[in-house]
Amino acid sequence: MLAKTSVDGSLRALRTLRLLVLVSLCVFISVSAASSPAQEEDSAMENIVTEKKAEESHRQDSADLLIFILLLTLTILTIWLFKHRRFRFLHETGLAMIYGLIVGVILRYAVQVPREPRVILPSCVNSSPATLLVNVSGKLYEYTLKGVNSGNEMTDNEMLRKVTFDPEVFFNILLPPIIFHAGYSLKRRHFFQNMGSILAYAFVGTVISCFIIGLLMYGCVTLMKHLGRLGGDFFFTDCLFFGAIVSATDPVTVLAIFHELQVDVDLYALLFGESVLNDAVSVVLSSSIVAYQPQGDNSHTFEAMALLKSLGMFLGVFSGSFSLGVATGIVTALVTKFTKLRDFQLLETALFFLMSWSTFLLAEACGFTGVVAVLFCGITQAHYTFNNLSPESQDRTKQLFELLNFLAENFIFSYMGLTLFTFQNHIFNTMFIVGAFLAVFVGRAANIYPLSLLLNLGRRNKIRSNFQHMMMFAGLRGAMTFALSIRDTATYARQMMFSTNLLVVFFTVWICGGGTTQMLSCQRIRVGVDSDQENSMSFADGSERRSTKQESAWLFRIWYNFDHNYLKPILTHSGPPLTTTLPPCCGPLARFLTSPQAYENECQLKDDDSDLILTDGDISLTYGDITVSTDATGAHTSSGLAVDDLDRELAYGDHELVMRGTRLVLPMDDSEPPFTDHLRM
Amino acid sequence: MLAKTSVDGSLRALRTLRLLVLVSLCVFISVSAASSPAQEEDSAMENIVTEKKAEESHRQDSADLLIFILLLTLTILTIWLFKHRRFRFLHETGLAMIYGLIVGVILRYAVQVPREPRVILPSCVNSSPATLLVNVSGKLYEYTLKGVNSGNEMTDNEMLRKVTFDPEVFFNILLPPIIFHAGYSLKRRHFFQNMGSILAYAFVGTVISCFIIGLLMYGCVTLMKHLGRLGGDFFFTDCLFFGAIVSATDPVTVLAIFHELQVDVDLYALLFGESVLNDAVSVVLSSSIVAYQPQGDNSHTFEAMALLKSLGMFLGVFSGSFSLGVATGIVTALVTKFTKLRDFQLLETALFFLMSWSTFLLAEACGFTGVVAVLFCGITQAHYTFNNLSPESQDRTKQLFELLNFLAENFIFSYMGLTLFTFQNHIFNTMFIVGAFLAVFVGRAANIYPLSLLLNLGRRNKIRSNFQHMMMFAGLRGAMTFALSIRDTATYARQMMFSTNLLVVFFTVWICGGGTTQMLSCQRIRVGVDSDQENSMSFADGSERRSTKQESAWLFRIWYNFDHNYLKPILTHSGPPLTTTLPPCCGPLARFLTSPQAYENECQLKDDDSDLILTDGDISLTYGDITVSTDATGAHTSSGLAVDDLDRELAYGDHELVMRGTRLVLPMDDSEPPFTDHLRM
Repeated sequence: MLAKTSVDGSLRALRTLRLLVLVSLCVFISVSAASSPAQEEDSAMENIVTEKKAEESHRQDSADLLIFILLLTLTILTIWLFKHRRFRFLHETGLAMIYGLIVGVILRYAVQVPREPRVILPSCVNSSPATLLVNVSGKLYEYTLKGVNSGNEMTDNEMLRKVTFDPEVFFNILLPPIIFHAGYSLKRRHFFQNMGSILAYAFVGTVISCFIIGLLMYGCVTLMKHLGRLGGDFFFTDCLFFGAIVSATDPVTVLAIFHELQVDVDLYALLFGESVLNDAVSVVLSSSIVAYQPQGDNSHTFEAMALLKSLGMFLGVFSGSFSLGVATGIVTALVTKFTKLRDFQLLETALFFLMSWSTFLLAEACGFTGVVAVLFCGITQAHYTFNNLSPESQDRTKQLFELLNFLAENFIFSYMGLTLFTFQNHIFNTMFIVGAFLAVFVGRAANIYPLSLLLNLGRRNKIRSNFQHMMMFAGLRGAMTFALSIRDTATYARQMMFSTNLLVVFFTVWICGGGTTQMLSCQRIRVGVDSDQENSMSFADGSERRSTKQESAWLFRIWYNFDHNYLKPILTHSGPPLTTTLPPCCGPLARFLTSPQAYENECQLKDDDSDLILTDGDISLTYGDITVSTDATGAHTSSGLAVDDLDRELAYGDHELVMRGTRLVLPMDDSEPPFTDHLRM
Repeated sequence: MLAKTSVDGSLRALRTLRLLVLVSLCVFISVSAASSPAQEEDSAMENIVTEKKAEESHRQDSADLLIFILLLTLTILTIWLFKHRRFRFLHETGLAMIYGLIVGVILRYAVQVPREPRVILPSCVNSSPATLLVNVSGKLYEYTLKGVNSGNEMTDNEMLRKVTFDPEVFFNILLPPIIFHAGYSLKRRHFFQNMGSILAYAFVGTVISCFIIGLLMYGCVTLMKHLGRLGGDFFFTDCLFFGAIVSATDPVTVLAIFHELQVDVDLYALLFGESVLNDAVSVVLSSSIVAYQPQGDNSHTFEAMALLKSLGMFLGVFSGSFSLGVATGIVTALVTKFTKLRDFQLLETALFFLMSWSTFLLAEACGFTGVVAVLFCGITQAHYTFNNLSPESQDRTKQLFELLNFLAENFIFSYMGLTLFTFQNHIFNTMFIVGAFLAVFVGRAANIYPLSLLLNLGRRNKIRSNFQHMMMFAGLRGAMTFALSIRDTATYARQMMFSTNLLVVFFTVWICGGGTTQMLSCQRIRVGVDSDQENSMSFADGSERRSTKQESAWLFRIWYNFDHNYLKPILTHSGPPLTTTLPPCCGPLARFLTSPQAYENECQLKDDDSDLILTDGDISLTYGDITVSTDATGAHTSSGLAVDDLDRELAYGDHELVMRGTRLVLPMDDSEPPFTDHLRM
């Protein structure tokens, strides 16, 4: 497959070129359409100047947005062509960036829009209120505060200023669907199996990476200051901030290829889980660093109190966002469980959408981080609410968020390409850029290799060195890094960071993303692995998978029991009835909370979403200490092992008896548990 | 069913009350969460005042939006309860208004947020630029023009100002998905069958209604002026403007009930088609009236030139928007036909969404009306593009726009409820309100009854008097009227219009919407009509339906031929091959445009989307002048008439031979044409 791809390369390059010409044309047309004033209305409305101005501004806004829509349309068409021809060197996000770049060049150098005169008021006022009323010849005009003008934004090309979006758009409109979709589509079984490692990479690893990069950059910046290459202030907190925002990995390109080529599921789970969670860590970490404000004159010295405060803020914001996200997820699960909303799919989908969105708003309104809340809300929704939805709504919600994710992601990447040329305050400093690339590389290495070494001490299913190299290689930077760096570009340090981050994103997405297939074959990583089949295969050769479960067991013994015995029965229709798991004193409550289906489940002893979390077979190992893996699929595919399966069930059942202090009916015909593959990505 | 509903009324009222308490609580919580400042950050960030201000403003915005999300969530839950219990007196939109009203009352009277000091600048400047830079102690703060402040907006309650959205949000974000969805879900077959009448009601009727209402209101206003009850200017153009915006009907409540009770499809098609198209007429009409600007001193006199200009603008904007909408629809159809995008449903859906959205932006950027363009784009997409999509994308796009429509519609209606109490510039003038209600009633009557009389002269399938009464009764006002009136509330006249329109919407949605079932039974309009069965039924009694087709024939002879022979084959995979319909000189082009499926279609002579437009059987009447209706479904359900069906085919075929000058293969076994019911609403 790889060989075939490279053969047809030249042909495709030609086609791409043709398309590029097309995009230029399209954009030109739309731009010229945008800049043509409405001649026929001019004379008619000459006395309503303000109205006309607002109208023209609206027209301009529409045209600007149209540019992006056309860019996305083109990206879709091109990417279809690529997919159609199995051309994997360029992912849609990389392509969106290229198109964005081209449009940026055109806007920058080819389009000249006359500058609108901008009035600078002298010091009429002493404060900067949110709303300003200006008295112009008897009429009060209302102005709203947009922000501090950085001074050097006064360039000739008004067009460039116009295609610049409010940076908060990315954080408040485009990121949430992306992050929610990531949480909603976590490949749960393998995610939970590798949860210990994923948490280690995401939390410990990101913090390590942040500080390593911060320290290296501080060294780089100090050197630059000595050499006189620094044009402004660059404090240690700035370095740490840079480390935090550039530590958020976003291997969307790599994961798309992994998914397409069916790369090893554990590697996929490790990479995806890490990238999803380290976004959250990175956001909270960077805001905590910004919040580090020592008292006194010099606000950039070390102070223990301020540091503790920052640390407290990190923990507070993270746990607060986490709790909020989980809480709304649970509320949604309860609502969908106890109402018969599933009869009306439209209402169900709308409710799901609104509840998930309200998580974001609630977190933001409470001063937590909406993006983090949305992530954990997504995970909770997938784990509980999803099971309560009607099959149609399951499809609808999945497809809806898939679409939103696709659009938002490609929009961000094409804006990234555009902004390389249209952003007005770029500061490209060669030394800083070289230092940053080096620091990013070292920071990633300091995250992956030492942690893998430590984790391998505990894991029986070692993270092999080729997996480690692949993870190292897949440390792409993307939407989150961009959104965090464009949020504040007021100071010299932030502007330099922004420009550098753009280059880091471009490089990693194009080079690392484009080289994924090569890297996979170079590292001899197996492709074409069917995740279900792999289970039964490793089950057949019997040596590898059991250890993963053994390893993850210590973390999950408590969690799985709690989830299976209490949370699942309370929040969904599956799991054992609460009447059997809760102590007898809670009888009425248990009867109220248990759904009728749960009693049926009890009789059948099957878990409807057996692939969403470790299956009963998986978990039995943690009780019985038997080293033969017998998960549901394994039993399903190899019927010769039905006896083993039965043993497992009995062992599990015995344990249940001890644990719950109640008797479960154990049917013997559980060799074919229901295996639904709904949520597999 | 109706009896059962009213019996359980009291029980439900109790439940509704309980829910209302709940909503108040929810909103209070969210509001208090919103107004609590972030104490823990205060001390840390005291030197970054602007940043903090922006953050707090963002937090406030999130909280405001959260109020609406919670409102919608509550609406969904309540409406589920209503649907669950088949309670039809209150539609979701009416309910959303009630909840909005309650929250409005709370915000108005219960919540007191300290007023932020607003700085009024003296006449520092002589113009009102779009961007203002204010120099405050050395830093430049950037302000953007929001609009003209009407002066009396300076109330104590800052909260009210905060929950007020930019009026353009409705027109540019919430209306487009609603209108697109309306176009995309037009019940095509019956729509086309009644197209003549629908166009008459929508175009002629809306213009009549606009002028009748305008004249009556002018009389009312003149009377008020004489009585000294008028507090400001109110010109004749204002009256006409009022007539135009209040002529847009939006019987969403009625149609929902019609759909649920399966009311007569012709009545449904008439009402729905009229309401969809008169929105477009109303938008363009109102903007043309605004554009009426006579030269000279007195800008409110009659001037032929200005009138002609307005008329020209009406025609120009309408036809421009129409062409743009149809054009993007056609482009999408061509793209989906000639690429194999259908293999990748996500890309296909995304492309469809983006192309439909770009219609709106393109129209706005060109100075046309985006909403109108989007409507015709929706119709075109449904008629052509829909057939090229993969079945999965057909579902996806339908569901996506259904969801967007649902959310946007309920958001608008709950905002309407809210704004009755939170809008700061209400002018409730009893005389004007009474006059307006009277005028709206008379205007609707002057639209429906005379036009029906005229149309009945031409129609053989008369619009019976009970249908006319029902159409009169279903003249609800809704989202479009609201969006048009809130767009500009700068002058006294506009403010009074806005307040009055709110009342008109409330009254019609609650009273007329709530009384639909009563009205249906009072007018003895048949319910529970299966549209397919109805065809065969009227086919069986043989007297009624044939005439509809006869009547609509003159309009469609040309259109249907053109569509069937040229447009369908070019834009979709169905229809006869172009090689047979185009003149021989266009051979190569025809071969290029014809899809391989078309040749297969030729052999089978079936139209894949036979229910999207008049079926072959329907149209055969227009050629053969036979008065027995034999549409596809009729033939399908009553097999005893297969001979007739064959006759029809032959007659049709003969005609085809004459028309196309080429020979078609006529199979004999066409008694069971494929009947897909995808797009039925």
